[in-house]
Amino acid sequence: MKAARSDRGSQTRKLLLFTAERLFAEYGVEGVSNRQVSEAAGQSNNFAVGYHVGSKEDLVVAIVRRHAESIERRSAEMVARLPAVPALRDWVSCLVRPAVEHLASLGVPSWYARFIAQAMTHPTYRKLVFDEAFASRSFRHCHEGMFRLVPQLPEEVRRERDDMGRLMLVHMCAERERALQEGTASPRSTWESTATGLVDALVGLWLAPVTGPR
Amino acid sequence: MKAARSDRGSQTRKLLLFTAERLFAEYGVEGVSNRQVSEAAGQSNNFAVGYHVGSKEDLVVAIVRRHAESIERRSAEMVARLPAVPALRDWVSCLVRPAVEHLASLGVPSWYARFIAQAMTHPTYRKLVFDEAFASRSFRHCHEGMFRLVPQLPEEVRRERDDMGRLMLVHMCAERERALQEGTASPRSTWESTATGLVDALVGLWLAPVTGPR
Repeated sequence: MKAARSDRGSQTRKLLLFTAERLFAEYGVEGVSNRQVSEAAGQSNNFAVGYHVGSKEDLVVAIVRRHAESIERRSAEMVARLPAVPALRDWVSCLVRPAVEHLASLGVPSWYARFIAQAMTHPTYRKLVFDEAFASRSFRHCHEGMFRLVPQLPEEVRRERDDMGRLMLVHMCAERERALQEGTASPRSTWESTATGLVDALVGLWLAPVTGPR
Repeated sequence: MKAARSDRGSQTRKLLLFTAERLFAEYGVEGVSNRQVSEAAGQSNNFAVGYHVGSKEDLVVAIVRRHAESIERRSAEMVARLPAVPALRDWVSCLVRPAVEHLASLGVPSWYARFIAQAMTHPTYRKLVFDEAFASRSFRHCHEGMFRLVPQLPEEVRRERDDMGRLMLVHMCAERERALQEGTASPRSTWESTATGLVDALVGLWLAPVTGPR
């Protein structure tokens, strides 16, 4: 009896996380209250989020963590298969493909890329997303591997290209997620070829010559 | 008397456009009603948007048009100063700098980059933004000039990199706008050096070799 109740609690928690992810993806994390999440998940108790998950911050962290575990597992497997002397493209692949493969595994519609795109626009939630999604052991390992093969760049350019790469990855995936749901065209036919295009583009971005002002 | 009334009408219209731009930038175009725009602009008449501007689509077009005119003027001036045989970097500069210079001219806080970022996530409004902002005479001229100097690319890659470049431009500017308003760090110290970084990155993106799947 106790197990059944705890199963139900865990199901409710999953439902709340999934509902919150979709609402945040559509309306932004700021634009949706915990009460609205509880209501949209069909909970008669308006404090269901508070009871099953916690604060808005806890909710954001729980959503990211659910996906980050699968991405980290894929990433660790890919790192284990790296050649003895990886090239820049190999490290970039290890940063891009695990996340894109995870999105592909979610089916249509998925909301995670759009959720991340929304969460990154808010100072508090951006930090939570960074700490959970971009600070995993494997992600940091690949990031460091990549930087060892990128030409010497002024610190501001290095940070800027890191931002650019992140924005390109997140928003290309968010646009593809949206296009798949809407049934509209997307440049690439599969998530896998989307990943290939992103890897090519990111290698080009990191190797681009740096000029001074015009 | 008639002139004074018409001046007041034109002031009200400007106020409504500015208010809508800010609200759309913060909450998304879908997330804000014309009534909310009228209220936030302090209009006692809840239909002020309908009276002074028109539909939601008219509102989006009017906001974009107000900025697009200034960007188009800067762009035409820059094109007139191009060397006889422009390089790829020159055309990319003409696509990036007029928009970035316009954003710089708006002061802090500005909302236009964030407004565009939001409007681009919606199928209807995205099309309106494209038709107004990315279809100007000068913009198309530079776009075509750029494509003549980009290596031959498969059509899906060309469309993909066009999307990537647009997302990078819009979201780097939106993040900078947000960082300036929040007083948080941004990789580059000025809008001008932000434009330089974007031009370098876009040239790298367009010249990046295309590979097949891994």
